Amino acid sequence: MSQYLTINPKEIPTGKLFGYLTGTVTPRPIAFASTIDKQGNVNLSPFSFFNVFGANPPTMIFSPSRRVRGNTTKHTLDNVLEVPEVVINMVNYNMVQQVSLSSTEYPKGVNEFVKAGFTELKSEKVKPPRVGESPAAFECIVKEVIATGEGGGAGNLVICEVVLAHFKKEIFNELGQVDPFKMDAVARMGSNWYCRANGDKVFEVAKPLTTQGMGIDQLPEAIRNSRVLTGNDLGRLGNTEQLPTKEDIADFAANNIHLLSLKEQRLTEAELNLQLHYLAHDFLEQGKVEEAWKVLLQPVRFV
Amino acid sequence: MSQYLTINPKEIPTGKLFGYLTGTVTPRPIAFASTIDKQGNVNLSPFSFFNVFGANPPTMIFSPSRRVRGNTTKHTLDNVLEVPEVVINMVNYNMVQQVSLSSTEYPKGVNEFVKAGFTELKSEKVKPPRVGESPAAFECIVKEVIATGEGGGAGNLVICEVVLAHFKKEIFNELGQVDPFKMDAVARMGSNWYCRANGDKVFEVAKPLTTQGMGIDQLPEAIRNSRVLTGNDLGRLGNTEQLPTKEDIADFAANNIHLLSLKEQRLTEAELNLQLHYLAHDFLEQGKVEEAWKVLLQPVRFV
Repeated sequence: MSQYLTINPKEIPTGKLFGYLTGTVTPRPIAFASTIDKQGNVNLSPFSFFNVFGANPPTMIFSPSRRVRGNTTKHTLDNVLEVPEVVINMVNYNMVQQVSLSSTEYPKGVNEFVKAGFTELKSEKVKPPRVGESPAAFECIVKEVIATGEGGGAGNLVICEVVLAHFKKEIFNELGQVDPFKMDAVARMGSNWYCRANGDKVFEVAKPLTTQGMGIDQLPEAIRNSRVLTGNDLGRLGNTEQLPTKEDIADFAANNIHLLSLKEQRLTEAELNLQLHYLAHDFLEQGKVEEAWKVLLQPVRFV
Repeated sequence: MSQYLTINPKEIPTGKLFGYLTGTVTPRPIAFASTIDKQGNVNLSPFSFFNVFGANPPTMIFSPSRRVRGNTTKHTLDNVLEVPEVVINMVNYNMVQQVSLSSTEYPKGVNEFVKAGFTELKSEKVKPPRVGESPAAFECIVKEVIATGEGGGAGNLVICEVVLAHFKKEIFNELGQVDPFKMDAVARMGSNWYCRANGDKVFEVAKPLTTQGMGIDQLPEAIRNSRVLTGNDLGRLGNTEQLPTKEDIADFAANNIHLLSLKEQRLTEAELNLQLHYLAHDFLEQGKVEEAWKVLLQPVRFV
């Protein structure tokens, strides 16, 4: 039996497909979009079919898609077609319940800033106001609106150019870079699920070497086919350009307490290999790639 | 002094703007894109300027943007212009180091499936292969490629229609819905930061009422201006249509251990109010909105 469920989108109901797409294309950043209609009535609504797509010019797209049930359109879409401007406000954890409340389908003309208790700040370059509580807000001109279809669930690509950006100073570290832990962003997953980007679930991955790592295909076969090392371990090892020298490897064996203790045990070659892979795995989990190599390259008959 | 840093994108270097955008539009889902050139050479590369934008037709966009340094284009962009097909593979935690390795700038023609140790599975409706390790993979036809600019950092919108979707059965719960904890998705943040959507950082928010919650503007003033209740607390309270009856409130006071204990203390009206707000806050943090209302609506002279 296949381990996959394979689906032709044309052969299942749109609502069901929507569930699969929003469950697997995750986590999605949230555009908390402030718009106005011709009369100046303000609307504020969250959209997770959204992202940034380039920096020059700074381009963002969000999609107020047609509703699957009833095939109606959202006030945000009507508004940007009337007044092609929007402020895209970012959402952090402290705002999430109010943001959810603002997605209530209030009648046209209701101002969700008021209903959801957000602070209206005047924008400088566009007419819709921005959200005072947001850690970042982007005043945008709408360049184009592209309908991808006519039926329920069809997307409407609102292509925006950022003309002015506001960042709360509290999200920066002392070097002036955005600190993800201070940003405390919240994103959408499928169904009722949200994701808070913070705590131990935010982690760093060393950038690939500009000198080009050797790649997993160039790893020794015993490492590539290890029963202990994971894909993440191999990924870290493959991002290496230069292996430690024989001297470094010998030095390490003479001084590392774990290797010294392995030497004292009477292990078979297979047992020793296994123990070395476990030890290398531990080093890799800690991001200590060089140490892992020094373990893996030990001659197995090193006693 | 303003609490905001306000930036006109035209007045700062693109690289710096890129840092602000990728630091604040977070977390971004990752399209691990498999493409081929005219000769059939395979390329596999991750892009976080990506999302789903509609379900009918199922539409995804990713942007292999022009490099800020050197203004060169990526092999993925060259490929989709030659062969307008792509498989968008989703990324989970177990793959993240290999995915990062695959973003090494290997020379054209190098197959990152091989370099990064991924399994090539034959696609059914398009020519590029899909990634065997991915929890979900979308075979796509490229409908259009829109360049948003000519300079370094400019986005290239690769607009895709999903023609076949593959989901590993292990990501579904017993009801056939995607389980976010089994999906274990990984997303991009700014700089070297990634986010793993799992553990206690994944949480549910009750959908807004279709009957329309009262909104924060309709909450009693003492609640709206509480020094104890947070924005998230008010958001939950505002998502209420009907308040508990006087009988319910009295019943609750007669049986709730915390309220009974408050009654026994000789508190001033202000002290009692404060204690009630703390108690309501605790209930709201647990998602017990009805209980919170029963606390907040206690007559303050209830002894």
